[in-house]
Amino acid sequence: MRFLCIGDIIGRTGRNALKAFLPDVKEKYRPDFIILNGENAAGGFGITKKVYDEILSLGIDVVTSGNHIFDKKEISQFIDQEERLLRPANYPPQALGRGYGIYEKNGEKIAVINLMGRAFMGIPLDCPFRKFDEIYEKIKDAVDYIIVDFHAEATSEKTAFGFYTDGRADIVFGTHSHVATADEMILPKGTAYITDVGLTGPKYSVIGMKIEEPIQKFLTGMPVKYEVAKGKMIFQAILVEKEGEKADIKRIKIEEE
Amino acid sequence: MRFLCIGDIIGRTGRNALKAFLPDVKEKYRPDFIILNGENAAGGFGITKKVYDEILSLGIDVVTSGNHIFDKKEISQFIDQEERLLRPANYPPQALGRGYGIYEKNGEKIAVINLMGRAFMGIPLDCPFRKFDEIYEKIKDAVDYIIVDFHAEATSEKTAFGFYTDGRADIVFGTHSHVATADEMILPKGTAYITDVGLTGPKYSVIGMKIEEPIQKFLTGMPVKYEVAKGKMIFQAILVEKEGEKADIKRIKIEEE
Amino acid sequence: MRFLCIGDIIGRTGRNALKAFLPDVKEKYRPDFIILNGENAAGGFGITKKVYDEILSLGIDVVTSGNHIFDKKEISQFIDQEERLLRPANYPPQALGRGYGIYEKNGEKIAVINLMGRAFMGIPLDCPFRKFDEIYEKIKDAVDYIIVDFHAEATSEKTAFGFYTDGRADIVFGTHSHVATADEMILPKGTAYITDVGLTGPKYSVIGMKIEEPIQKFLTGMPVKYEVAKGKMIFQAILVEKEGEKADIKRIKIEEE
Amino acid sequence: MRFLCIGDIIGRTGRNALKAFLPDVKEKYRPDFIILNGENAAGGFGITKKVYDEILSLGIDVVTSGNHIFDKKEISQFIDQEERLLRPANYPPQALGRGYGIYEKNGEKIAVINLMGRAFMGIPLDCPFRKFDEIYEKIKDAVDYIIVDFHAEATSEKTAFGFYTDGRADIVFGTHSHVATADEMILPKGTAYITDVGLTGPKYSVIGMKIEEPIQKFLTGMPVKYEVAKGKMIFQAILVEKEGEKADIKRIKIEEE
Ligand SMILES: [Fe+2]
Ligand SMILES: [Fe+2]
Ligand SMILES: [Fe+2]
Ligand SMILES: [Fe+2]
Ligand SMILES: [Fe+2]
Ligand SMILES: [Fe+2]
Ligand SMILES: [Fe+2]
Ligand SMILES: [Fe+2]
Repeated sequence: MRFLCIGDIIGRTGRNALKAFLPDVKEKYRPDFIILNGENAAGGFGITKKVYDEILSLGIDVVTSGNHIFDKKEISQFIDQEERLLRPANYPPQALGRGYGIYEKNGEKIAVINLMGRAFMGIPLDCPFRKFDEIYEKIKDAVDYIIVDFHAEATSEKTAFGFYTDGRADIVFGTHSHVATADEMILPKGTAYITDVGLTGPKYSVIGMKIEEPIQKFLTGMPVKYEVAKGKMIFQAILVEKEGEKADIKRIKIEEE
Repeated sequence: MRFLCIGDIIGRTGRNALKAFLPDVKEKYRPDFIILNGENAAGGFGITKKVYDEILSLGIDVVTSGNHIFDKKEISQFIDQEERLLRPANYPPQALGRGYGIYEKNGEKIAVINLMGRAFMGIPLDCPFRKFDEIYEKIKDAVDYIIVDFHAEATSEKTAFGFYTDGRADIVFGTHSHVATADEMILPKGTAYITDVGLTGPKYSVIGMKIEEPIQKFLTGMPVKYEVAKGKMIFQAILVEKEGEKADIKRIKIEEE
Repeated sequence: MRFLCIGDIIGRTGRNALKAFLPDVKEKYRPDFIILNGENAAGGFGITKKVYDEILSLGIDVVTSGNHIFDKKEISQFIDQEERLLRPANYPPQALGRGYGIYEKNGEKIAVINLMGRAFMGIPLDCPFRKFDEIYEKIKDAVDYIIVDFHAEATSEKTAFGFYTDGRADIVFGTHSHVATADEMILPKGTAYITDVGLTGPKYSVIGMKIEEPIQKFLTGMPVKYEVAKGKMIFQAILVEKEGEKADIKRIKIEEE
Repeated sequence: MRFLCIGDIIGRTGRNALKAFLPDVKEKYRPDFIILNGENAAGGFGITKKVYDEILSLGIDVVTSGNHIFDKKEISQFIDQEERLLRPANYPPQALGRGYGIYEKNGEKIAVINLMGRAFMGIPLDCPFRKFDEIYEKIKDAVDYIIVDFHAEATSEKTAFGFYTDGRADIVFGTHSHVATADEMILPKGTAYITDVGLTGPKYSVIGMKIEEPIQKFLTGMPVKYEVAKGKMIFQAILVEKEGEKADIKRIKIEEE
């Protein structure tokens, strides 16, 4: 089974990059199942129903998210109805939405779990380590594959989570930093791991945003309005091939020249 | 000389409390100079020109602020023109607005300095300790009184600042926590100090806001819309009397029953 | 029933203040039950068995704590055995120690619950709001009084917690900031509340520590070694009187002149 | 001119990796000038004189650092004397040590500037953007190359800094996250940039530390003692070749199998 995991896609530029590069990627790597983090898909902050539908129409199987999931007001109108849209499972039980799902594809049952780290994230969440344990115990006998999008800031929390779930999750891919890391590897007990897949969207940007505003914010301390950067595009993902005990992880990066 | 220092006033309820209680306070304590922190004066977030004018019309001499000063977009249209409106002086030099001013009243020259702490504040500011030194050296020979509104979260930073400026500032009053502290005192070298003056506005509230939304935020992790609380009002301030070496500080709290 | 709640006591100076002032306080106010926060009792950081025993010998019924509870290595040797020593109940279940206890005094059953806030606290804890609910449901029918030490930094989290538990807890007293707040009150549904009781220990200090080192830290960014301040002492506490529906809260502050 | 920039080396395992792999790297890539971040070189926390000398003896030209520079007490005994040891230049002026230096090699003058980001770093530093400007104006006419080690957590601050100095610095390499990023590139105006070089040290670890303790910390909230991981080693660096307008950046990763 081949899994393609795409990180945070950033606004219209990200969706354009998806349209421009995904067909070739599919052609070349023939993924069976595709996951994408959509927390920045609409204007860089949150996701709308229209954008969500657009993403699904491109052949994405599951859309995960993170701290920006509730940015767009309309999210509360549709998140509970959409089985293929996840928000971190360690949001408190009272939060809208769901944190994991089990999906069938090619006769295989694939669990996708979305979790969020807590270090530096500023949102009062439940423990992602224990939440994984809880979900894992519930589903492990009912599924063939377990994939986790671990959305977090601190590299220590991300790598600790990877080792903690090593041998239980098939894939743990990190998101949120918007910068791809070069540490894709198969952990000792077989889990395919990367600290961050990196963004899909504008190639020259500050985590997907136009460069000038973040610089102004750092220089003045005053609030600025962020806008999704335009210009050349970049597509980033990981491809994981998993057959029985065999696992392989490969980082994909396609840049517009 | 008698100084009345009022902390963060919260939205309309705060302005109403000001109108309701300030006349009696003036009558009773006869302050010569009144400072008020206006960062939450307009709807709980920021300040508008109209609200600023309303506050001045009530007899306030100087309006200080803090991390919410730039919340209302229109602030950039008027902050540079208003000599009686301060934002923390340790914002970077490129920020709009001014951080201190020298004002005349009853033949005395009074410097008001607005500074902001950095612990837990999330805004990249310059060092408030060194910024105080810099301003102090510039003005010390030209003024009769120096008053600091130190807008900060951490009690350690606030008390450290108080002792650091003890004997140089006449008054250091803290703001931002919206809860009055009971530690008003004259420090060993003569500075009148309080960690936080506390809010003026709704009596029953979560730092001035309706109670339900903050609770929902802590319970769900989802964003909520804060609204200024209504109902019974509270007025809080400190009165400092300073004559030569003699200094006296008194906390004032008037609650609607 | 009369409850005396003492905040964070700071090192030897704090214990000396306890010895100096508690007898008179007892004589004057005749508390039936005394709670004290001991997280800084030993050298300003953590608590040892010897210091814990010393505190109990002074007539304290229960010792609560907070983020510093595990600072002294030997804590792991005795915390599990000591029924009158609490650490925040919303530490993960795997942590050593207990988070609440039920104690008998004068024929009454008194539950003391220790909880910790999460904003700015830097420790990955469970939700204190839901943890309160969980404990409350378990004990409410078995006890006569429920008292909470809510150890937290952010005033918003503390006041939100107070209102959240209003009518369920008899007393919610805040600790951790080491500065007493002046907002002691009976909340609308009857809970006696204060945002922070304030420290017991050195009168002139930066949250209990010698003044020079914290200032150096803010000025240089370099690590410093904190030491408990000496000199004049201050004793701070709240006295809550609770009889049926009637509740009364009073702040106590005794300073060495 | 060829520059080799090595990120945070972690304790003894890091120094062993250096000894094991640097000779081959030198042989293969023939760097003219080598920079290494030594903030974790001694036991994972800080640097001692002995370790510093050992590193220099391996042919390193300049040792940079970050938030851990002052972890070892003895640092204050030698940092002021060592011209090839840098700490972030935006520490306040009162801090020990120096933040940049100008070094001669092969007849070229090379400035190395060490700076630290502020987001999530918890140390009260001056603005790294303006500090760069200040140093740049002072040295730009006196040197042939300018290299910056930007030690920071947030990817947004790191990439914003890269673009801010694009065309002024020859190289900006990020450190601190201990995980290499895959975004090495030549920015539009010619600066060679990477968000993080990644650690040199243990291959399987949580940011260089044994895996079990960080996991325990996340699971229990209790303090743990971190120890540098052992086992297989990894060496990570970037090689930048700069000739007039031409610039090239290449990521190097050598893993023990
Ligand atoms: Fe994102
Ligand atoms: Fe995110
Ligand atoms: Fe405020
Ligand atoms: Fe504020
Ligand atoms: Fe404390
Ligand atoms: Fe504490
Ligand atoms: Fe490091
Ligand atoms: Fe670091």
